[in-house]
Amino acid sequence: MQPEVHFYFDYISLNAYLAWTQLPRLIDRYSLTVRLHPVLFAGLLNYHGQKGPAEIRAKVHWMTKDVLRKAKRLGIPLQPPSSHPFNPLCALRVTLSVMEHERRWQLVDALFRATWAESRDISQPEVVAAVANSVGLEGETLVEQAQLPEAKQALLHSTYESIKKGVFGVPTMVVGEELFWGFDDLMHMELFLDGQDSFEAQEFSSWLNVKPSSQRKPPESN
Amino acid sequence: MQPEVHFYFDYISLNAYLAWTQLPRLIDRYSLTVRLHPVLFAGLLNYHGQKGPAEIRAKVHWMTKDVLRKAKRLGIPLQPPSSHPFNPLCALRVTLSVMEHERRWQLVDALFRATWAESRDISQPEVVAAVANSVGLEGETLVEQAQLPEAKQALLHSTYESIKKGVFGVPTMVVGEELFWGFDDLMHMELFLDGQDSFEAQEFSSWLNVKPSSQRKPPESN
Repeated sequence: MQPEVHFYFDYISLNAYLAWTQLPRLIDRYSLTVRLHPVLFAGLLNYHGQKGPAEIRAKVHWMTKDVLRKAKRLGIPLQPPSSHPFNPLCALRVTLSVMEHERRWQLVDALFRATWAESRDISQPEVVAAVANSVGLEGETLVEQAQLPEAKQALLHSTYESIKKGVFGVPTMVVGEELFWGFDDLMHMELFLDGQDSFEAQEFSSWLNVKPSSQRKPPESN
Repeated sequence: MQPEVHFYFDYISLNAYLAWTQLPRLIDRYSLTVRLHPVLFAGLLNYHGQKGPAEIRAKVHWMTKDVLRKAKRLGIPLQPPSSHPFNPLCALRVTLSVMEHERRWQLVDALFRATWAESRDISQPEVVAAVANSVGLEGETLVEQAQLPEAKQALLHSTYESIKKGVFGVPTMVVGEELFWGFDDLMHMELFLDGQDSFEAQEFSSWLNVKPSSQRKPPESN
């Protein structure tokens, strides 16, 4: 049976784009079926009461260097985005409304590239429409439909469903019961797909039984 | 000239322990001088208004598996800690009070191992004293002195100094102006020390000039 990978992403994440560029290689190697799940990263952060990396000033410097180094190593062309963070709602809702797998795939690819390799501003509905048109979809119609309450509800639902699966960030790859988070975790996913995952369930359960003996005071809001 | 690496750590971090176990190999390979900086991870989180990984329930599962996989791959023996999170203040303050490099090194090694390979509870002053005794220090005296206002001030100072260097998490390795964060970033640090860092300052500055066009609403406190 072909292994199935659920890929959870938001266009706002450069690490999600880096992981995205690796999927064709993994599909070839493992005959993977990949299911694409657009989710709102900001919704995950809100749910978990967490800051995103772009919201911690000291981390932005580190993270930018980190992704530039990874992209260079992998030969992935990058351009600075036209703005960041940006509002990805229209792009995510339009993506969710395209049900047919191959067409959704092409749209995701084109929107990721527009953002991270072409400096185009996909927070603008007209840009999303143009990108959708470029892969043979009815861009203007899709963008218009993305304003409907049903389209908004669909993105909320997708994000909430991901949270129920344990997703707390993007990109996340879920294979069966195993959740892999972040570009760096692709390596562990490959070992898992190779049947060489070193993970031992019994050892894991003894770690999960560890109890806290101290807790940090809630930080002052700042 | 020998490259100098500043290593910022807190015993509470298993990723810091994993990085710690790699330092001897790196010292051999690059004739590194390593300066050890105990800092309070909770202080970094408070300063940056961030949650620690152990404070996000969905992330705890992922992170535990992730570190177990890494440890297995590297052949690092691990035991579940006696509790987690725990209060590392006494251990950190005692470490800071040992000024002589070689003795501080032995103490750090023994306290890391006590926590992550021997399931000993270093939140207890008597355990810190016993561990210090085991490397030839005057454990009881050091633990007593760690209660003094000067010792508390020294840890605050060390943590604050790290924040001024851009540190936002542990482990952090700083070489010259370059900051490497987390166990996974040791790979980039090695490329940097090899003179094979792909990083380009000009490209970086164009990324740092990217402006936000949207910002997430502050999450409800939860």
